[in-house]
Amino acid sequence: MSDQPPSTPLALDPGAQELLFRSAHTANTFTGEPVTDEQIRAVYDLVKYAPTAFNQSPLRVVLVRSAEARQRLLTHLSEGNRAKTAGAPLTALLVADHDFHHELPRLFPKMPQAKDVFFSERADRERSAAFNGALQIGYFIVGIRAAGLAAGPMSGFDAEGLNKEFFPEGDRRVLAVVNIGKPGPDAYRPRAPRLEYDEVVSSV
Amino acid sequence: MSDQPPSTPLALDPGAQELLFRSAHTANTFTGEPVTDEQIRAVYDLVKYAPTAFNQSPLRVVLVRSAEARQRLLTHLSEGNRAKTAGAPLTALLVADHDFHHELPRLFPKMPQAKDVFFSERADRERSAAFNGALQIGYFIVGIRAAGLAAGPMSGFDAEGLNKEFFPEGDRRVLAVVNIGKPGPDAYRPRAPRLEYDEVVSSV
Repeated sequence: MSDQPPSTPLALDPGAQELLFRSAHTANTFTGEPVTDEQIRAVYDLVKYAPTAFNQSPLRVVLVRSAEARQRLLTHLSEGNRAKTAGAPLTALLVADHDFHHELPRLFPKMPQAKDVFFSERADRERSAAFNGALQIGYFIVGIRAAGLAAGPMSGFDAEGLNKEFFPEGDRRVLAVVNIGKPGPDAYRPRAPRLEYDEVVSSV
Repeated sequence: MSDQPPSTPLALDPGAQELLFRSAHTANTFTGEPVTDEQIRAVYDLVKYAPTAFNQSPLRVVLVRSAEARQRLLTHLSEGNRAKTAGAPLTALLVADHDFHHELPRLFPKMPQAKDVFFSERADRERSAAFNGALQIGYFIVGIRAAGLAAGPMSGFDAEGLNKEFFPEGDRRVLAVVNIGKPGPDAYRPRAPRLEYDEVVSSV
């Protein structure tokens, strides 16, 4: 349980608040229990509804399952992230697809011309995919927790190396890497302080 | 209710799944019911626990409450976003703070040197604040829904104009603008299609 009760009732029930936010922690160790494709499908089928600009949905998820691919991944992680990743039952690359615009006429039928009006330039697509892909990573981390699993998101990796290793054609970019599984022994570091409300929220 | 039941049981109860994802929609109209600071505080006190790299927590939220500030905001929105924003009980700027590193020794006590090792360069701080701020916007949108409110996130605005208008010192950047309130009449567009699982998730 968290250190303080909610200050105001939310519509979301307290158990769900604990599961998704208050008791949830980034995990640094995992049990050996496998994470199945069916579990990841359930996560996706939940979080796919959350919003992105023009419903562009640029996030792609690569499950690193084979021993060979896991080894290739590990070489591009910062040293502090290698052992815990080697010990995780599943690691996923969370990736921005710079060619998301091809699907826009289907994903945003309200404005079939959006593909050409807003996203004909690659630089605009990269910028938009980076932002909206990050939004979707936020939703995905919440979704992993909704499946009763712990997430261990990481940004400590050689981004250029990882992009070239897994996407040599240059059409995708790894935004984050996340370990997924049931938390193991000593999985959690102590909760670090959060900013106070008045440090974050102001009015004009 | 959504068009299909979850394919696999999640740990999150079905009511919470509906509230946060399946029944939740981007709202384009709102009732006049005010959104209080207490509600925003409850949202923040929930989503503040979600992870960012180094717990850097770069997101800042500016509630645009005064008539004068609302008018200044509207002039920088794309035309299609003005009327619905003028009709929303509350609009918030979701902002990346490029000076987040000043708080890092408090927020990430495990590595007090992170501030100088990773974030002494402004370009690195901007890049990291953009990514982690977007993650936090994902959490914040989920949190708005957890409070029983609807979110109307927007990326259609003159970013440079908005930054200069509200943050002339250049230390912050508006990443998104979001309307918040109870959904009004005809608030929702039909749900647009989502990508299929196999289009998004692959294994290597």
